[in-house]
Amino acid sequence: MTTTVDILAEKGEAVRRASRKLASLSADTKNRALSGIAGNLIAQRENILEANARDIEAGRSSGLSEALLDRLLLDTARLEGLARDVEKVAALPDPVGEVIDMQVLPNGLSAGRVRVPLGVIGAIYESRPNVSIDISALCLKSGNGCILRGGKESINSNRALTELVRSSIGEAGVPEDAVQFIDSTDRALVEGMLKLKQYIDLMIPRGGADFVRYVGEEAAMPVVTGGVGVCHTYVDRSADLEMAVNIAFNAKTQRPSVCNALDTLLVHSGVAATHLPAIAHRWSRAGVEMRCDSRALSILGPTQGSAVVPAGEGDWGQEYLDLIASVKVVDSLDEALEHIEKYGSGHSEAIVTGDYTSASRFMKEVDAAAVLVNASTRFVDGGQFGLGSEVGISTQKFHARGPLGLRELTSYKWIVQGNGQVLG
Amino acid sequence: MTTTVDILAEKGEAVRRASRKLASLSADTKNRALSGIAGNLIAQRENILEANARDIEAGRSSGLSEALLDRLLLDTARLEGLARDVEKVAALPDPVGEVIDMQVLPNGLSAGRVRVPLGVIGAIYESRPNVSIDISALCLKSGNGCILRGGKESINSNRALTELVRSSIGEAGVPEDAVQFIDSTDRALVEGMLKLKQYIDLMIPRGGADFVRYVGEEAAMPVVTGGVGVCHTYVDRSADLEMAVNIAFNAKTQRPSVCNALDTLLVHSGVAATHLPAIAHRWSRAGVEMRCDSRALSILGPTQGSAVVPAGEGDWGQEYLDLIASVKVVDSLDEALEHIEKYGSGHSEAIVTGDYTSASRFMKEVDAAAVLVNASTRFVDGGQFGLGSEVGISTQKFHARGPLGLRELTSYKWIVQGNGQVLG
Repeated sequence: MTTTVDILAEKGEAVRRASRKLASLSADTKNRALSGIAGNLIAQRENILEANARDIEAGRSSGLSEALLDRLLLDTARLEGLARDVEKVAALPDPVGEVIDMQVLPNGLSAGRVRVPLGVIGAIYESRPNVSIDISALCLKSGNGCILRGGKESINSNRALTELVRSSIGEAGVPEDAVQFIDSTDRALVEGMLKLKQYIDLMIPRGGADFVRYVGEEAAMPVVTGGVGVCHTYVDRSADLEMAVNIAFNAKTQRPSVCNALDTLLVHSGVAATHLPAIAHRWSRAGVEMRCDSRALSILGPTQGSAVVPAGEGDWGQEYLDLIASVKVVDSLDEALEHIEKYGSGHSEAIVTGDYTSASRFMKEVDAAAVLVNASTRFVDGGQFGLGSEVGISTQKFHARGPLGLRELTSYKWIVQGNGQVLG
Repeated sequence: MTTTVDILAEKGEAVRRASRKLASLSADTKNRALSGIAGNLIAQRENILEANARDIEAGRSSGLSEALLDRLLLDTARLEGLARDVEKVAALPDPVGEVIDMQVLPNGLSAGRVRVPLGVIGAIYESRPNVSIDISALCLKSGNGCILRGGKESINSNRALTELVRSSIGEAGVPEDAVQFIDSTDRALVEGMLKLKQYIDLMIPRGGADFVRYVGEEAAMPVVTGGVGVCHTYVDRSADLEMAVNIAFNAKTQRPSVCNALDTLLVHSGVAATHLPAIAHRWSRAGVEMRCDSRALSILGPTQGSAVVPAGEGDWGQEYLDLIASVKVVDSLDEALEHIEKYGSGHSEAIVTGDYTSASRFMKEVDAAAVLVNASTRFVDGGQFGLGSEVGISTQKFHARGPLGLRELTSYKWIVQGNGQVLG
């Protein structure tokens, strides 16, 4: 009988072996493999869509919500988008072998750092089949092997996609074992993965706050945690009205289901009477429910009707991932900073202001992966920041913070070249 | 009754509070505090030396070895050296606030990363009192608070030194609570520190391999592990004789008690008959014991007498920290690479070669924090690499690899500045 431990150890051995070869592949070979994946996503779409249809059918009969079914769904347009994303990763510079800094020391030694892959990345993620492709592509380009474990509702899609990835890279001369898929919905395999310290160098958990915390506590290897964004936008006393309305509207409604969407609006009391109703007016037309503190309630209550309700204590620090926002009136920048420190998750925090000192203090004092002045939190994204796609957004300070692109999947080694130097 | 938990929580709260102020101190203030420490190490030397004398006396009566007593000892010359090291840290550029990369995106947003402190560093270290000063200085300059726990034999010295640090920085307007000393030899406090995830952002364990592994497994917060150096020097077939002798001699004997000293010499069989006796000759005059495989033994045995003994299986992968080396004859670069992969600790690995391809392959294929060509492994050091002093040498790939200087004690945040941009 094959046990959980056997399955994992076998995949671990295989990907570790493959990762040694990956580390020294040329960018040309890796890019050819990526183009192969992109091409096959189109060429083999019937096969992928058929597997995905089985997941959708199973999801529907087990009562998955429409929102979750939509995350699970693949169609020709989405496959084409996915193929374009893979081509974009191919077009990015190869991070491996990059010389980060190299100096000639007074004794003639040349010493500096050269970027190398981390080794093997483990990823455990929600039922979004596109993630299997995104992470495979970024790991391949950065010279890392990967072990993938997607959500159980997407198992047929993920099996088809990872088989496509393995055969595509094999054709390009890259070891197929560089990408391993845990083809089982057995929860024990997740626990087993977290103990595979000898095979997995970094674990990336994606999903809800509880799951990410669980992985952070249980994993034997380093973990990059993140993805949970309790994002505030603070409208300063000096904020331009139109700018505040546009930014709050965009941050809340452009795509409410993602981690960099607005959760809490803080408005300075000096402009609450003008700016808050204007924001609420745009929001209410988009169907945003506003959970207000007593001061916001007294300003908005009479005008906005049923979209405005009193906030409970649990609304502060809540990530909604939906058309809901909590709203609070504050008397100063300091009060806004204190609120953000207490309730923020260290993801993305924005200020709308016309005041130089307020902007400077906000940038300096807010302790988050991304701090924005006069811009929507929705910009906090590896693609927007020029990193290509991302495997996630880190809210920790260790190793990498913010969007995790190719560079964040690497380490470095020191290279010292001499001609006989000894230490005096 | 004050419990272990109370003591640690109190110090944790205090240093966390102080660390928030530290993050925004100007370089001028931090440098003034560092100069104060340096000055007081000289001005208050009587007090420090008196405390150290008590540690030395206690160590002597408890039978500490001469080598350990030497590590524990402070004298006027050592205090002066320590003061100079602190002044060197003051002279280094402030890493905090450094703009790592900043670009203007096509939509007019300016986005990039700015360096910030990690927060609070925990350090648990051997009975070397100078470490209390080195780590305090590097943490202060990088804007981090620290909680220090030194070896029990050095408790009087560490108490005096950390009191000096706290009062010196206080005089310069830096919160004294930025530096916390665990003034107890109770082992339970070490275990307690490892659980203080809410107060300590990074733990740095220093000491033997077992202790470092224990901390890596037990700590709730991120850990930088390292310090264990099983260092190989491979003398290639094409190695210059004199260069090989000088490098092997320096790497083994210049300071045998440190982690970047040579442990194992690998010599290509094509030059073993000439190079090995020449190296052994220099080594034996310095008192180096050579633990040889059978081929090295047959070359050296007859000529070197009692300094040459057969190696046991436990000699491969052994860190000696003493005038002992294991010696092995190999038939190829590949065999050397395999040996290093199997037995190395990922610290510092060197090749002596005149061959371009051998040098290139060694640099590319050896997976270690530092890889050296034609240079002594003794150069792997933060001071040598221009980082100033170091808090340790990391052998992990995550976050930081090799010497840990100021930069490695920082993280970054993304700063995005706009004028009303929203995501389309």
